[in-house]
Amino acid sequence: MDYIYGIHSVLEALDAGRTIDRIYIKNPRSEVAQRARQLGIPLQVVPQQKLDSITRRNHQGVIAMMSAIDYMPLENLVPMLFDDGVLPLFLVLDGITDVRNFGAIARTAECCGVNAIIIPTKGSVSVGADAIKTSAGALSHIPVCRVESLVDAAAYLRQSGCQLVCATEKSSVNYTTADYTVPTAIVMGAEGTGISPKILDMADVRAAIPMFGHIGSLNVSVAAGVMLYEVVRQRLDGNLEVI
Amino acid sequence: MDYIYGIHSVLEALDAGRTIDRIYIKNPRSEVAQRARQLGIPLQVVPQQKLDSITRRNHQGVIAMMSAIDYMPLENLVPMLFDDGVLPLFLVLDGITDVRNFGAIARTAECCGVNAIIIPTKGSVSVGADAIKTSAGALSHIPVCRVESLVDAAAYLRQSGCQLVCATEKSSVNYTTADYTVPTAIVMGAEGTGISPKILDMADVRAAIPMFGHIGSLNVSVAAGVMLYEVVRQRLDGNLEVI
Repeated sequence: MDYIYGIHSVLEALDAGRTIDRIYIKNPRSEVAQRARQLGIPLQVVPQQKLDSITRRNHQGVIAMMSAIDYMPLENLVPMLFDDGVLPLFLVLDGITDVRNFGAIARTAECCGVNAIIIPTKGSVSVGADAIKTSAGALSHIPVCRVESLVDAAAYLRQSGCQLVCATEKSSVNYTTADYTVPTAIVMGAEGTGISPKILDMADVRAAIPMFGHIGSLNVSVAAGVMLYEVVRQRLDGNLEVI
Repeated sequence: MDYIYGIHSVLEALDAGRTIDRIYIKNPRSEVAQRARQLGIPLQVVPQQKLDSITRRNHQGVIAMMSAIDYMPLENLVPMLFDDGVLPLFLVLDGITDVRNFGAIARTAECCGVNAIIIPTKGSVSVGADAIKTSAGALSHIPVCRVESLVDAAAYLRQSGCQLVCATEKSSVNYTTADYTVPTAIVMGAEGTGISPKILDMADVRAAIPMFGHIGSLNVSVAAGVMLYEVVRQRLDGNLEVI
């Protein structure tokens, strides 16, 4: 992954509005730390050794990992899509930290005509070279919105007229019985932990993919594919435009 | 992965019918090589150094890599399922060599109630510890048939009354328009190369998953999930038993 080091260089990148994935910093009270917090950029306080392991040059206690993609503000994108008369489909990823899963999901989303992927600033993947590669380049095509609060983003999507469909095993509603011919945001949670309770509470539909074997859970990138292609199926059946 | 070395030990394992994934051998005309050929066990002629890199013990020019699972003979399984009144669903994997993809596919297949996964002896994955792990243990539950000829296996499935549905981008038939409420074998090909022409020629249906973006192809484990869950959807809609 690309990175920038040194106090002056990082401050300059921040001021220029360059897309920074996260900043590793030794001193949480430094000027860089304060600026990063103002801008909502993930900050990780780390010991000297961590910084030294990234570069042996004079990093002055701060290294900014650059994002491989530019993020799009959700509040710009959503009205734009509605104005364009698009029947939107959003994909909200809650706590997906595995880069390969994230890449595979982005690839599927791009193939399905998803309008944007929404990820939180904290507790999500770093969108670096590995993610781009696993996505087969999809991340260069599909808009990704990085939001400070996924709960706020979910609420905003609902207020904008999207139904919130949470994929969860803890539901008796088969995912195929929901109606996806309306503006929809699909929420996928991390394997194991699932979707966070606050977002589950907001769900218009809790949708379960039926399970028949002993394992009882799919890989999250497969589950996302199954959910998204059901949306596609219903929209094509209804003669609606997918993208 | 577990292995057995030395002429005597490997011959004994062959005679005892233990499940061997493949045999690395120095001399293709040795007794072990001849026995392995008779039994249809993959044989790979390798130089001394390759054998030495696996074990420093006295391997006598032959090492057998043990399979982490037992394979099931297809010709036993198919009649058994039909006798039991099962509406069968088979998954044929043509040239899937990536262990993680194979594991993820096996996991999905187990969740969908697939009755067996069919892989070829040559040009397929080694079903070792990595595959078991990626499958989340599914490979300990779902039958896997390893066949010498995938073409013959596909022909046999058709003769037994299964329709052969080949997932391919080179078709104008949307995969959701096929009827999966009859005995079905889904064929998935490797990313890039796809399904081999001989098997494509046998297809009752060539089914395409619609693509809307720039990338134009899914990860094969995602594509398998999308295909298999369409089968599940149709069978549940038709009040048919999935497993």
